[in-house]
Amino acid sequence: MTQPSAPSDLSAGLPVVRLKPKANARAVRRGFPWVFANEMVVDRRTGALTPGTVALLEDAERSPLGLVAVNPASKIFCRMLDAEGGSAPDEAWFAARLSKALALRERLFDAPFYRLVHAEADGLPGIIIDRFGDVAVIQPNAAWADVLIAPLAAALAQVTGCTTILKNAGGRGRSLEGLDDRDAVLLGTAPEAPLPVEMNGATYMADVTGGQKTGLFFDQRPNHAFAARLAEGARVLDVFSHVGGFALAALAGGAASALAVDGSAPALALAETGAARMGAGDRFATRQGDAFDMLAALGDEGEGFDLVICDPPAFAPSKPALDKGLRAYERVARLSAPLVSEGGYLVLCSCSHAADLTAFTGACLRGIGRAGRRAQLIHTGGAGPDHPLLPQLAESGYLKALFFRL
Amino acid sequence: MTQPSAPSDLSAGLPVVRLKPKANARAVRRGFPWVFANEMVVDRRTGALTPGTVALLEDAERSPLGLVAVNPASKIFCRMLDAEGGSAPDEAWFAARLSKALALRERLFDAPFYRLVHAEADGLPGIIIDRFGDVAVIQPNAAWADVLIAPLAAALAQVTGCTTILKNAGGRGRSLEGLDDRDAVLLGTAPEAPLPVEMNGATYMADVTGGQKTGLFFDQRPNHAFAARLAEGARVLDVFSHVGGFALAALAGGAASALAVDGSAPALALAETGAARMGAGDRFATRQGDAFDMLAALGDEGEGFDLVICDPPAFAPSKPALDKGLRAYERVARLSAPLVSEGGYLVLCSCSHAADLTAFTGACLRGIGRAGRRAQLIHTGGAGPDHPLLPQLAESGYLKALFFRL
Repeated sequence: MTQPSAPSDLSAGLPVVRLKPKANARAVRRGFPWVFANEMVVDRRTGALTPGTVALLEDAERSPLGLVAVNPASKIFCRMLDAEGGSAPDEAWFAARLSKALALRERLFDAPFYRLVHAEADGLPGIIIDRFGDVAVIQPNAAWADVLIAPLAAALAQVTGCTTILKNAGGRGRSLEGLDDRDAVLLGTAPEAPLPVEMNGATYMADVTGGQKTGLFFDQRPNHAFAARLAEGARVLDVFSHVGGFALAALAGGAASALAVDGSAPALALAETGAARMGAGDRFATRQGDAFDMLAALGDEGEGFDLVICDPPAFAPSKPALDKGLRAYERVARLSAPLVSEGGYLVLCSCSHAADLTAFTGACLRGIGRAGRRAQLIHTGGAGPDHPLLPQLAESGYLKALFFRL
Repeated sequence: MTQPSAPSDLSAGLPVVRLKPKANARAVRRGFPWVFANEMVVDRRTGALTPGTVALLEDAERSPLGLVAVNPASKIFCRMLDAEGGSAPDEAWFAARLSKALALRERLFDAPFYRLVHAEADGLPGIIIDRFGDVAVIQPNAAWADVLIAPLAAALAQVTGCTTILKNAGGRGRSLEGLDDRDAVLLGTAPEAPLPVEMNGATYMADVTGGQKTGLFFDQRPNHAFAARLAEGARVLDVFSHVGGFALAALAGGAASALAVDGSAPALALAETGAARMGAGDRFATRQGDAFDMLAALGDEGEGFDLVICDPPAFAPSKPALDKGLRAYERVARLSAPLVSEGGYLVLCSCSHAADLTAFTGACLRGIGRAGRRAQLIHTGGAGPDHPLLPQLAESGYLKALFFRL
């Protein structure tokens, strides 16, 4: 109420956008980072703003709410950049945000392999940055990040010392923002070979130009580590293994053997390279094919494992897909539980936004029960701390890893 | 439907108890471990059974549901011992359960300091056993465990090699079961001095005869470890510190200083002994008094810390206490957030069954917001894996530790 209704000097010249009277200004003031299109006054001038324009957001009474990035082509019309207002982001602005994000990761990790920026929670809405040593991969999943990619990349080089910066335009969110899918090299030269990444004592090969996402999933790191604690001397099965996520961690944890199953032959080839670099190639095997078929086949073969991990892609990425997704998770549990030896461990993961922990746990228990098994739940893991959450965006807690003992 | 309705030979001679027709037999078949008194047929014979009697449970159609422990004096009338039936527990029966529980802990931990048995989830309903090297402390919180304490203790000595076994009758659940609060020494002699316990590189002093619960809270171990990762070079404040749980872990993690606040002078004295044994006495200080008063006083003094942890007792142990409890959690957050330096960390814990994660997170965010701060949520921790859950008892996931960065 005591705030000035006029923009500050710093923000002079920026366009102003305004909430409808019915919109929830209180949510914005409490830190909710988005304003949806139906909450905005959209006149000809506002509707014509270039996607990614930086503007000042006001409530219906013309009190300032902060500096936002606007995209009239997206359902998320405004993304909050700074509730304190200020001027449009430049290299120094990005450098301050990146330095704060870097400080957290440097405190948490011994080596520079991590998610450096996790979008809204790190104050950079829609922007993902993964770091692989001297190589950084930016996923600009909101229009403003495309517009300001040059000062962002310059600040990234300055703050981290990275000598190669890539743009990965494969994020699913980009089409919702009306953005193209053209990758680019922003600094240096793209690495020609996959990069070795050390995590939890294992060596993963990250294909930062050709692979899924940015070549490696950092989010499962603490769950890989927990699985490794269960792996000593164990026969391990890792289904939906990608580049060997759980399997290689289990080998590093002393597994007697690990079998990785995935639909992607290139991903399994990277897993094999990683296992060989670890000197664990003789304990490692792969099978390429449909995971459900493979689980059924292993059951028919009467195979038994002491530790089985299933880390499938998102079966329920959105609410309309929830029921079908939960049935798929139940099926994974029902097919995998019979492969677990008595007293062994079953790890079931979900990266579905729409399936919350209760719904996912219920699906897993139904599947385990239908397989005629009973379970203790010994650990529930989420994404690693280089994937912070904005508490106001509850849905951002997408990753769930349930560690059962059967 | 194909199961025999007559008890097996093994269970011959055991009394039979029966569900009412309206009772949820399906829940029991799916693994729910309790039957409440209002779901049971209670005639003169059944109502007169001695608390702790082992019996056979049948559904209303006289199909067997399993072997149960009965307590007509408790709302929890039946606790499932074995859905497969079988004979009344003897030393060999206990030894089999304890061996399975021990196998999990030996896989998880390098040293024999852990919760060995976590009640229902370890197949021993109402029984808690904590292990401190050669000393084990049993909390028999259900009548059957009191009745069968002799074969239980004998099996415990046989399976673990423990030479001292104590009975701690201080559990809150015992009064609900109509049980006394008399502690006992079941094997060996009670240790005269507190026992040193190594966890996360810190040394804790556990007073297994005079302290709270069984002298040490093993459940926070992974959260202590996570806090220690944030502690290097940090000024640390540990409120509701008990015997130094978070403070000593932070010192082991390289904290510049740690201040422990607690209402109990004996608990703080044990924390000081632990810090001295770690050679960290010069970095450690304590203040005894009411935690709320202390938080307010530190705020008035303008103190700043890089890492603040608040791990209060259960403010919302039951549903009627929920609203009041959530206000208390909000107050903890509001008083502690101002003490955290910019970019520093605030860890807020709850061990309240009634406050679920969403409600507790909301209370913390309101408090942080009322202190004028904004937060990233970098990690959500639960109890350690030596505290497994029975998935059918959702409420058993009582411990929550939220790691915020302000």
